Amino acid sequence: MAAGIKASGRPDLALAAACSETTAAAMFTKNRVVAAPLEVDRTALRATRGRVQAVLVNSGNANCATGPAGIKACQDVCKHAADLMGLKQQEVFPSSTGIIGVPLPSEKIIAKLPELIAAGDATKDGMTRFAQAILTTDLRMKPASVRFRAGSSDVTLTGIAKGSGMIHPQLATMLVYVFTDISAAASDLQRLLRKTCDETFNCISVDGDTSTNDTVLLMASGQSGVQLKKVQNKFARALLAVCQSLAGQIVSDGEGVKHVIRLSIEQAKSREEALRIAKAIAHSLLVKTAWAGADPNWGRILAAMGACGVPIRPEQVEISIGDQIVFRKGTANPFDAMRAHQHLSQPVCDIGIKLRRGRSSILFHTTDLTAEYVRINADYST
Amino acid sequence: MAAGIKASGRPDLALAAACSETTAAAMFTKNRVVAAPLEVDRTALRATRGRVQAVLVNSGNANCATGPAGIKACQDVCKHAADLMGLKQQEVFPSSTGIIGVPLPSEKIIAKLPELIAAGDATKDGMTRFAQAILTTDLRMKPASVRFRAGSSDVTLTGIAKGSGMIHPQLATMLVYVFTDISAAASDLQRLLRKTCDETFNCISVDGDTSTNDTVLLMASGQSGVQLKKVQNKFARALLAVCQSLAGQIVSDGEGVKHVIRLSIEQAKSREEALRIAKAIAHSLLVKTAWAGADPNWGRILAAMGACGVPIRPEQVEISIGDQIVFRKGTANPFDAMRAHQHLSQPVCDIGIKLRRGRSSILFHTTDLTAEYVRINADYST
Repeated sequence: MAAGIKASGRPDLALAAACSETTAAAMFTKNRVVAAPLEVDRTALRATRGRVQAVLVNSGNANCATGPAGIKACQDVCKHAADLMGLKQQEVFPSSTGIIGVPLPSEKIIAKLPELIAAGDATKDGMTRFAQAILTTDLRMKPASVRFRAGSSDVTLTGIAKGSGMIHPQLATMLVYVFTDISAAASDLQRLLRKTCDETFNCISVDGDTSTNDTVLLMASGQSGVQLKKVQNKFARALLAVCQSLAGQIVSDGEGVKHVIRLSIEQAKSREEALRIAKAIAHSLLVKTAWAGADPNWGRILAAMGACGVPIRPEQVEISIGDQIVFRKGTANPFDAMRAHQHLSQPVCDIGIKLRRGRSSILFHTTDLTAEYVRINADYST
Repeated sequence: MAAGIKASGRPDLALAAACSETTAAAMFTKNRVVAAPLEVDRTALRATRGRVQAVLVNSGNANCATGPAGIKACQDVCKHAADLMGLKQQEVFPSSTGIIGVPLPSEKIIAKLPELIAAGDATKDGMTRFAQAILTTDLRMKPASVRFRAGSSDVTLTGIAKGSGMIHPQLATMLVYVFTDISAAASDLQRLLRKTCDETFNCISVDGDTSTNDTVLLMASGQSGVQLKKVQNKFARALLAVCQSLAGQIVSDGEGVKHVIRLSIEQAKSREEALRIAKAIAHSLLVKTAWAGADPNWGRILAAMGACGVPIRPEQVEISIGDQIVFRKGTANPFDAMRAHQHLSQPVCDIGIKLRRGRSSILFHTTDLTAEYVRINADYST
């Protein structure tokens, strides 16, 4: 619902309540500057060993760089929610997203809590309202759901995400909540979640800025009656599918994005090396602006790779755009520039890099950089 | 003069000739992808131990990622110039700037060489034509000159630069030529030049992209009759002043730049740490777009610092905009937002960061990121 945190009056407060058997695991930003709710979450998860009974999210204010008063405001809100719901304060998991450095208007949130809790709604409509209330500059809400069969039972995973700017691995300005009815120990969830994040949310970049509030939370209610141990591989695949979908939706909804680029780095010495090359390309303003113009400019890609610290040898590098090799053996490979331009004019484009250095590869999702991105971020305070 | 390398028909070929006593030193890009002329320059400088008799520069084509044919084209041009000027091939220092990956039209350059050499002109007008012919997307030519007294003689240093995009430390897409009439050994020039580059060209960033063609060349003719050894400090200061001026001109003429930001990082543990913080801020799209909007958004600056790997503690960081402290002790410091906005609306703005970690400091020059930058680079192939 709308608690008046956003000046626009749009929805900015959401609550998800869990049943008592629920276990949870979470991943947080690696930024050294960490928002108050993440500090509160970390302490609480350690104390409860992964017990979360409610998720309370506000948009419109990041509650970051707000000092001890920010921690206090976050704890106050959790305390009030816990009291109203008959929970322990540490069982409430808070998240915030929005402007940095402005005190959290906790009194506005606290005033709305009774109404918010009473409005609880275990239908798809309730989920939709949750997905909408956590948005900031996002244009679209971002849901993803997968169901699989386990014996005579079904296991469902439903994820909800927000994020469209300050998006860069480790993690992105994004909040992601994945709810499932599998039965699992918190430690098993944590292991699975870490691995899945590495392959999904840590392989995307919109603008290379890493947020102070990034959070991915996985909650398992056990209501399906299915034990994780018995369907480990199926569940891991389903979790990967949900997170891949959400990561893809975040990139597609990137601020001002016209083109999503699927960047495939192959034949690297290690995964770290492949990721470093991918980030260098995804982070280059000249590459990103060329993509905005659908310009098959492989020279800028090569220059960005050369500056990132990986000792590549240009004569071993191969670059392709769509199905055409445009650079190999240290020089341009004759290609149809119009076909390359047409490929890059599509909403989703493929760029391939082969390094001939080893056997590691990575698929990285990134975006172009448009004048619209600049307009959004020159005019909007986050 | 115009040799027809640029489709626009604007000047794209320049030559500077030196007297026979001249010694030289050069610095090149640290990009792993290196343009053909830089390979030729390095080999020649090693062979001649720093003897350069002519500088031959073309704009409109970078002669980069052009393979062995690119090296051959560069050598051909040097050979023809040397023959016409009565020099050894290795005494001609070639530079190229412009689009990457397109074969150098060496026949166009060779055809113009006799006319170019005949047009030699040791006046200010000749220097101006040199400064103009080396430009690409630059809006302005970039000269700087300093003269100092040494006994009964004068020593003069005149520098000429180009560069406005692909500008990031180590080095920038820039060509810089500094000519002086001091008498010096090449090894002494090299030592001085390296130190001066660290404090000037390696402390600027427009877009964080590092070019494949960056070159700084310092040539000393000895014509003043003054020995470097006798005026070491004076000369070092003069060289610093010329390079500071050129670095400042490159940043001010950055593509689409509305605001130049003087970023002062103080109290870092080391120079490397200060530089890392400066680059993280200067490289953040969210920070650069906030600057484009003259938005005193310190939260984005703090978030960029937090993500760069330096273990800063937010509660020890102090951020100021103009003469106002906007963040300290982990939270917002009350400040006049309108005055901060007015400060950031000026052509040159000051942002100060104190880390309370040590005694190292750095002054870094960078720019905002405007929709105009995106337009220039989405539409123009480099």
